Amino acid sequence: MYSQSHVAADFVSTFGDTLSMTRKLFQTTDPASQPFIISGSGTLGWDIVAANLVEPGEDVLVLHSGYFSDGFADCLATYGAKVTQLKAPIGTKPQLPDIEKALSEKKYKAITVTHVDTSTGVLSELKDLSALVHKVSPDTLIIVDGVCSVACEEIAFDEWGLDGVVTASQKAIGCPAGLSISMFSGRAMKAFESRKSPPASYFASMKNWGPIMKNYEAKKPSYFATPSPQLIHALNTALTLILAKPLSERFAKHIETSDKIKKYISDLGLNQVASKPEEQAHGMTAIYLPEGIKATDILPALGKAGVIFAGGVHKEIAPKYIRFGHMGVSSLNPERGDIEKALQALKSNLVALGYKA
Amino acid sequence: MYSQSHVAADFVSTFGDTLSMTRKLFQTTDPASQPFIISGSGTLGWDIVAANLVEPGEDVLVLHSGYFSDGFADCLATYGAKVTQLKAPIGTKPQLPDIEKALSEKKYKAITVTHVDTSTGVLSELKDLSALVHKVSPDTLIIVDGVCSVACEEIAFDEWGLDGVVTASQKAIGCPAGLSISMFSGRAMKAFESRKSPPASYFASMKNWGPIMKNYEAKKPSYFATPSPQLIHALNTALTLILAKPLSERFAKHIETSDKIKKYISDLGLNQVASKPEEQAHGMTAIYLPEGIKATDILPALGKAGVIFAGGVHKEIAPKYIRFGHMGVSSLNPERGDIEKALQALKSNLVALGYKA
Repeated sequence: MYSQSHVAADFVSTFGDTLSMTRKLFQTTDPASQPFIISGSGTLGWDIVAANLVEPGEDVLVLHSGYFSDGFADCLATYGAKVTQLKAPIGTKPQLPDIEKALSEKKYKAITVTHVDTSTGVLSELKDLSALVHKVSPDTLIIVDGVCSVACEEIAFDEWGLDGVVTASQKAIGCPAGLSISMFSGRAMKAFESRKSPPASYFASMKNWGPIMKNYEAKKPSYFATPSPQLIHALNTALTLILAKPLSERFAKHIETSDKIKKYISDLGLNQVASKPEEQAHGMTAIYLPEGIKATDILPALGKAGVIFAGGVHKEIAPKYIRFGHMGVSSLNPERGDIEKALQALKSNLVALGYKA
Repeated sequence: MYSQSHVAADFVSTFGDTLSMTRKLFQTTDPASQPFIISGSGTLGWDIVAANLVEPGEDVLVLHSGYFSDGFADCLATYGAKVTQLKAPIGTKPQLPDIEKALSEKKYKAITVTHVDTSTGVLSELKDLSALVHKVSPDTLIIVDGVCSVACEEIAFDEWGLDGVVTASQKAIGCPAGLSISMFSGRAMKAFESRKSPPASYFASMKNWGPIMKNYEAKKPSYFATPSPQLIHALNTALTLILAKPLSERFAKHIETSDKIKKYISDLGLNQVASKPEEQAHGMTAIYLPEGIKATDILPALGKAGVIFAGGVHKEIAPKYIRFGHMGVSSLNPERGDIEKALQALKSNLVALGYKA
């Protein structure tokens, strides 16, 4: 599309509507909640949290369910947080009693959880976790990495009492990559406003971006750094499509498709990296390959069949598994046949490599 | 376009070629130079400089030629630099003797210069400035904010001995907004590698992005944070168009068009914010309005005529001037008639508001 000026009335209106729709995506109606949409990748969301909500020397508890928890922990440490990681064996997540114990041992400014860890396909439950944190450590901010979950797993921001969810445009939202999208509670914004030290980042500073987001949502032009009119328009379109139907239908459809995929994988005799059914994501599946078949053998063969699976990214098990993304259109529009095509290609290529299904 | 996987061979090749073309855009052939292309806005380039090339407590000299120098100074201070601003009266830039004096008084880790300050249209000369710095303070890194200059003003990175130029995709490069594009010298990369403290940002960290950029340029897939295939493709196309003709022609054409615009403005009896001809940018013109006519009167009228001028952003003079961008296609393709249309609309709307041209 033709590029608009980032302060033209048309674009200001589009950006403002996009921010308002982001509230709906997160199911928040609390006017104190604050959305941020900034040019960047999902990773930038970690910087927004680490540089604004945590001050140097403060403790953060990172719930570890895969590779991406290590990244979030590194980012927090970069800005001076003292990070404690609560690790679970690969393919599982930290359990509530262990989290309760950890929270009772130290005063944490924030706890972070990866809603779906893209490296393992492990789904973390948020509702009971949030209730636990509110009960045993009520001042602790509850921060969710929702890069691989927003728009395919339910997130009831207000109802569950979350304080921050950071995500990106290119996964289940179905917009091109290039936008960091996040939502923070009134409580998180107060924690930011009452910090003693200035924000530890410039580009990821809530002080710099907060007034801009408020102005755009009030349909007033405003400038800190140039937004991307093309990507904001794409996000506007993506959110309009998502919100045209009840979100509950969208989440239910992802579960339905995911259940079918998990059954097919299991019937094939394959195991998932996420070992417990209640901890399996609904927008992706991480699948252990049969003994003797490597990711580097099967991925190119699948590619030739027109099906893109991803390699493993959890360094301890990377060559042994592959990842199958099934979020957005592929799950919501079964008439496309994407899922069947991918599963059949997986089966036939495993067989071609000598696997007895 | 259809979204590609950021690790698919086709995309890796496109991204690699884009990085190589970026070297040509900056006229650097030194293999030690390192380009970075990261999802973000031009502002992110300041963070890359401030969080990687300067350590907390080190001194930086900021040459002030408008609003954007204040921004760069704020960013540097955020990451702990001790900033000294050398300010010039509005519409001018710091002069070499004053810069020499400042450099002799303190040991600066870096000096920053805004090549073209978008708020004033002031052009800073780089060649003689760089020679001066190399002579009187050879260890000082020379960092250029080239957001409003790259691809419309000459930048001979190697020949002039620059250490860093940061820019964005959406100005003279002619690509949609959403990418931070930068080039650093081998000397700058060494300064980064020998820093005692870790990089002060995570998303803007050269440690995180350096290996990724090297891998993509060597056509190997690599992951730190998800790049935007759509924007990288657009940048690839934009750079292919730019490099299809000699850069010298491109710069000469911008000067030729700019000279005509400046003459028209002067013949209209109007003054530029940039008061000295040798300090006037060639991709934009900042124009003082006649006494009694406000930017808020004429900008909407121009908009109705289908011509977008921008308001003032230099806070001390904002209501008194407007800005005219004439970089990229509008200057390079005079057959479009963009420039004539804009100048005639400016004249007729001034007259309609009572100005006697």
